[in-house]
Amino acid sequence: MGKMVKTDNIADLQQKKEAGSINKSYCTRPSLDGIKNIKPTDTKSEKKLFAETKFVSGKWNTEINVRDFIQRNYTQYNGDSSFLADPTEATSKLWKECLDLFEKERNNGGVLNMDTKIVSTITSHKAGYIDKDLEKIVGLQTDEPLKRSLQPFGGIRMAEGACESYGYEVDSNIKKIFKNYRKTHNQGVFDCYTPEMRKARHAHILTGLPDAYGRGRIIGDYRRIALYGIDRLIEDKWEQHASLDGEMTSEKIQLKEEIAEQIRALKQMVELGKIYGFDISKPARNAKEAVQWLYFGYLSAVKEQNGAAMSIGRTSTFLDIYIERDLKEGVLTESEAQELIDHFIMKLRLVKFARTPEYNSLFSGDPTWVTESIGGIGVDGRHLVTKNSFRYLHTLENLGTAPEPNMTVLWSTRLPHNFKRYAAHISITTSSIQYENDDLMRVTHGDDYAIACCVSSMRVGKEMQFFGARANLAKCLLYAINGGVDEILKEQVGPKYRPITSEYLDFDEVMERYDDMMEWLAGLYVNTLNIIHYMHDKYCYERSQMALHDRDVKRYFATGIAGLSVVADSLSAIKYAKVKTVRDENGIVVDYIVEGDYPKYGNNDNRVDELAVNLVKTFMNKIRKHHTYRNSIPTMSILTITSNVVYGKKTGNTPDGRKEGVPLAPGANPMHGRDSHGAVASLASVSKLPFSDAQDGISNTFSIIPNALGKDEVFMGDLAICLDGGCCIDNKNEEI
Amino acid sequence: MGKMVKTDNIADLQQKKEAGSINKSYCTRPSLDGIKNIKPTDTKSEKKLFAETKFVSGKWNTEINVRDFIQRNYTQYNGDSSFLADPTEATSKLWKECLDLFEKERNNGGVLNMDTKIVSTITSHKAGYIDKDLEKIVGLQTDEPLKRSLQPFGGIRMAEGACESYGYEVDSNIKKIFKNYRKTHNQGVFDCYTPEMRKARHAHILTGLPDAYGRGRIIGDYRRIALYGIDRLIEDKWEQHASLDGEMTSEKIQLKEEIAEQIRALKQMVELGKIYGFDISKPARNAKEAVQWLYFGYLSAVKEQNGAAMSIGRTSTFLDIYIERDLKEGVLTESEAQELIDHFIMKLRLVKFARTPEYNSLFSGDPTWVTESIGGIGVDGRHLVTKNSFRYLHTLENLGTAPEPNMTVLWSTRLPHNFKRYAAHISITTSSIQYENDDLMRVTHGDDYAIACCVSSMRVGKEMQFFGARANLAKCLLYAINGGVDEILKEQVGPKYRPITSEYLDFDEVMERYDDMMEWLAGLYVNTLNIIHYMHDKYCYERSQMALHDRDVKRYFATGIAGLSVVADSLSAIKYAKVKTVRDENGIVVDYIVEGDYPKYGNNDNRVDELAVNLVKTFMNKIRKHHTYRNSIPTMSILTITSNVVYGKKTGNTPDGRKEGVPLAPGANPMHGRDSHGAVASLASVSKLPFSDAQDGISNTFSIIPNALGKDEVFMGDLAICLDGGCCIDNKNEEI
Repeated sequence: MGKMVKTDNIADLQQKKEAGSINKSYCTRPSLDGIKNIKPTDTKSEKKLFAETKFVSGKWNTEINVRDFIQRNYTQYNGDSSFLADPTEATSKLWKECLDLFEKERNNGGVLNMDTKIVSTITSHKAGYIDKDLEKIVGLQTDEPLKRSLQPFGGIRMAEGACESYGYEVDSNIKKIFKNYRKTHNQGVFDCYTPEMRKARHAHILTGLPDAYGRGRIIGDYRRIALYGIDRLIEDKWEQHASLDGEMTSEKIQLKEEIAEQIRALKQMVELGKIYGFDISKPARNAKEAVQWLYFGYLSAVKEQNGAAMSIGRTSTFLDIYIERDLKEGVLTESEAQELIDHFIMKLRLVKFARTPEYNSLFSGDPTWVTESIGGIGVDGRHLVTKNSFRYLHTLENLGTAPEPNMTVLWSTRLPHNFKRYAAHISITTSSIQYENDDLMRVTHGDDYAIACCVSSMRVGKEMQFFGARANLAKCLLYAINGGVDEILKEQVGPKYRPITSEYLDFDEVMERYDDMMEWLAGLYVNTLNIIHYMHDKYCYERSQMALHDRDVKRYFATGIAGLSVVADSLSAIKYAKVKTVRDENGIVVDYIVEGDYPKYGNNDNRVDELAVNLVKTFMNKIRKHHTYRNSIPTMSILTITSNVVYGKKTGNTPDGRKEGVPLAPGANPMHGRDSHGAVASLASVSKLPFSDAQDGISNTFSIIPNALGKDEVFMGDLAICLDGGCCIDNKNEEI
Repeated sequence: MGKMVKTDNIADLQQKKEAGSINKSYCTRPSLDGIKNIKPTDTKSEKKLFAETKFVSGKWNTEINVRDFIQRNYTQYNGDSSFLADPTEATSKLWKECLDLFEKERNNGGVLNMDTKIVSTITSHKAGYIDKDLEKIVGLQTDEPLKRSLQPFGGIRMAEGACESYGYEVDSNIKKIFKNYRKTHNQGVFDCYTPEMRKARHAHILTGLPDAYGRGRIIGDYRRIALYGIDRLIEDKWEQHASLDGEMTSEKIQLKEEIAEQIRALKQMVELGKIYGFDISKPARNAKEAVQWLYFGYLSAVKEQNGAAMSIGRTSTFLDIYIERDLKEGVLTESEAQELIDHFIMKLRLVKFARTPEYNSLFSGDPTWVTESIGGIGVDGRHLVTKNSFRYLHTLENLGTAPEPNMTVLWSTRLPHNFKRYAAHISITTSSIQYENDDLMRVTHGDDYAIACCVSSMRVGKEMQFFGARANLAKCLLYAINGGVDEILKEQVGPKYRPITSEYLDFDEVMERYDDMMEWLAGLYVNTLNIIHYMHDKYCYERSQMALHDRDVKRYFATGIAGLSVVADSLSAIKYAKVKTVRDENGIVVDYIVEGDYPKYGNNDNRVDELAVNLVKTFMNKIRKHHTYRNSIPTMSILTITSNVVYGKKTGNTPDGRKEGVPLAPGANPMHGRDSHGAVASLASVSKLPFSDAQDGISNTFSIIPNALGKDEVFMGDLAICLDGGCCIDNKNEEI
């Protein structure tokens, strides 16, 4: 859940786009022997270990519980940004080298180098550096910066396509392996798709399905590695493995095998540490190790998974605890602390995947969605802002602006004033911060959740999402009118229900047909996703990310809809104006003439807003009727931010007067220009949408021209007030 | 089901043994594109096709129904064996070449050559021949006769072990693939085994589990290829695939994907035909093609699966229909017909797998269990004996005796006299026929079932079995006495139930403990098998065999027990004599002194026979309490024929006075020498065992010394009489 409002006031800096990705790495299976024999941590030595750390002890000492560690040990910061340090010489030099690499990459057609021979696994590559002597935090996806890794487990053809589009060719032996011996996610999915699913996908009534790439939207609790060290995590996983003994149903066998794979991944993470000269089997002993250990966890994830959104979680306040201690002990200066964070963020900015031009066009770029969630308020009322919350945002000054990592402030009216002002300042100067409503999300998710991708919230290490892209409800309405015939392809795609034959559309008749067609679409959609997630687990399981989760994770089955405002307006036009159909030679309705005016969504007019509300409720309830893979909890988002453009291209003329090819409005936005009663009325319409039926998030993108609001100081105040007013803002020019 | 009695009257000819195998091939996934577009057979041309065949039409023309084809078209034969033809010159020459190869193989240490580079799939090898010009039926597992194929999908370590034990080494690239990218059945199983399962396996209370090799016991209906051609079968499979549309549960997705894999296998079978110069996409046009088409189906199975028992089904009467037609039409002579069968059988004799010495020692050889089921009676009362039933048996004269294929006569009192006499004659002269009670099996399985391995009956193409090896009930009794401590390992293996502490064993106390321990063992056993079969389906699915099955196969979950008579006698000794315990220094009972006499199983004495009966009932009911993978139907066998020797080695002294290491009696046999009241009493004891609780078969091996019964003619009569008496005989010296 999460209600997000985006302000794209500066519109040409970044290219990050909607989630999606190509493939992932799955196995490399060293023997489990040996791991099994790790002795449970001796209680006595454990106590000693944690006593030495000078941290306040608690439940986190006897169970894997990062939140408890944070709550007992973090230091709130209410001051301003004056303590922040400039980039060190090493930082500036290193970042300059990165910028040079980015330029080379651009000049090279978008990709600097691609691995075509080595299948990416946690331990597949030797150590890689930008400039070894300068780097405080190390680790690359491959052995060279910006060399894109080969991840065929999601789909060998996608991997081949990504390479070919940049003039590379996957090694023939690798091709042979993945065509003859090792089946991929993509192959599994297409083995099971029904003709109806293929058609619906082809016609774009179901769009952006993660059936050929990694689904992403899973956040490993990378902090666990720093706090506990891998040995302790493996021990915990063996306990989970043992706890699944007993009656062996297929569900239990599946989870038990997954945990065995997780243990393999953890063991390989230790190897990864060794490749770079570190022993991450034990807890981090200082701030530098804490950042490094955590990053190795994330690095393992992106080495194995090319997920649609590879978010990093909620790490700033956690790491602040280590930094604060080291500062107090005089073993770290503020400049060194900032350097660690700068170098860490630099690494996150280097994360890249091999993707196809089609993928990039859908998502308007090459996004990784390394979302980091900052701030928020604890359930005990204390805010969670630390100096490190500032340091993370400060990287946007030290290194300059960038779309990744996706810095997201968990906004609350109760955030400290100085932090609000600093965030607003950074927003204005860099346009690179996303805001989300913490007051809303804290209610269901507590105070240790994070955002995956752009709005999907989940308790870190305790919840995950099966990402499900979108159903195009605008097209569904056209199918209802045309009896399942696609208005562009002129083919029967949906069921052969009775089409509407009258010249003028009758509201009740259309609604009856539409209800039936949504019933069909919801079922088809859920079942398509059931296949996708079954196969992703089978052929492309996220073992390194799930290794940093509890045993019994809550799984969300995320569906999404596109075209909300087009449908609301279309239904409103049919109800309150007169809509005349225009048919082609075969009787297919191909256009609509609206006679008269009608209430439009986005003007706080209940007549049409209720149509939108009912639409959300109705479709979600139809989704809920169906079996969802692994008994996951069905949710829905209203969240297109860039893909609405592509979806619009594939959607014919609509009864609201919108023409074929015109973009659908993003997310829950009113159609462009129709919200004629001002921003407040527009927001009011959006705010009526029921969160309980769109728990995965509702997005509303709107633009504010800074100059119109006056200069920095004024705008900063206005922005803060606006956010306090209950909405959240992503003032980045990225799109979802 | 099936009650089998074995006569090993000639005891040194063959070495075939109990089912079991090492690995299997799974994927090689050509695109499914193209297949999909095969047009449904045009009804008109279909009719024409079948009209041309001059077969009586029926349901088999409009649905996949081989039985219907057989019933409408086969020609009963009541005559004697005088029509049979001697081997042709080609046959003799070819077989001589085979014998030379076998000799070379023996001289070479048991293996002639091994493939270490090419993973065996249906299409992995170029055509291979013994002597191309002489062969009427062609096709080898690899490109050379007796070159053993590489099948790592069941387990790469087993494949490596098999190679290494004969001085070969698996190619390092293959090793890398199967260790890094392609997980195997074996790895999956061991990822999920509980410590208890590992221990039980190590202690041999669960034995011979198919967790490192192919489970086998699945019979493809290879006849379908000859009758319908592959195109028609693919069309049928696409219909099945489509019939699984709708609500996508994991169970349905699993089956849908399996059918997609089956279609891939079928398509590859066409390629296999092409490799040898045949087009098997269309039905066989004559007897030669029928044999060849059918054999290509079987060859595909053994190229992909190194199963514990790779039985061929019930093919003789089916093929007779083609031969009979060709004979009538004058396009085939009897000599040519026999030559086809001789060459076909020769090919089956050449089937070999790469296996480890451990495997061979458990199964006392290198068995393939190419069981062919011959004869039997139809449900309409007509016997199913044809001239081809004779021809199959006649191969044992033309080529000499051999353990494979495992010729099995489905015996009935109503089999024609001449066939009975000929079978008895072949039994005496070659000792290579197994007999099974058709009158018994026909009741539940109808008249188109076949035997997999040695007694497991299943309707061809409609039923399959999850093979489950055995639980050692004798050891379980010792665990009951020692509170779960293994009497040989001196380790806690079973649960820490209260041991028996008295000097003399009390029957009621022992029974109470034994019941608890069996409860534990049954649960552990079923859950171990659940893991094995889940993983076999996941990593080592028998797509080529299942491609020749219906959509909704009945799956049997086959368990088995060892040590029946030892337990019955032990309990009888405790109840009717006095059994004194002998303990070691730790109080573990390591020996038993029986004071007095007691009734022994195998003498038709109800006092002990009832103990055996109750044991079977009790254990089967405990098995039934548990969830079985894919809701398969739990069954049980009492069927050790060779492995009882190994099991005995791993079982300590027992309360019946049997000493540690002494073999358990095979199957349901009385302990050697204890059935002192003659064969009839012995058989009577066995016959009391409830088939309803041992549906997968009960074996009773006994020896008859031919000379004691007089010369051939007399013995043949006696044998026939004995079989008519209701038992079945496997007069081969093989063991299970």
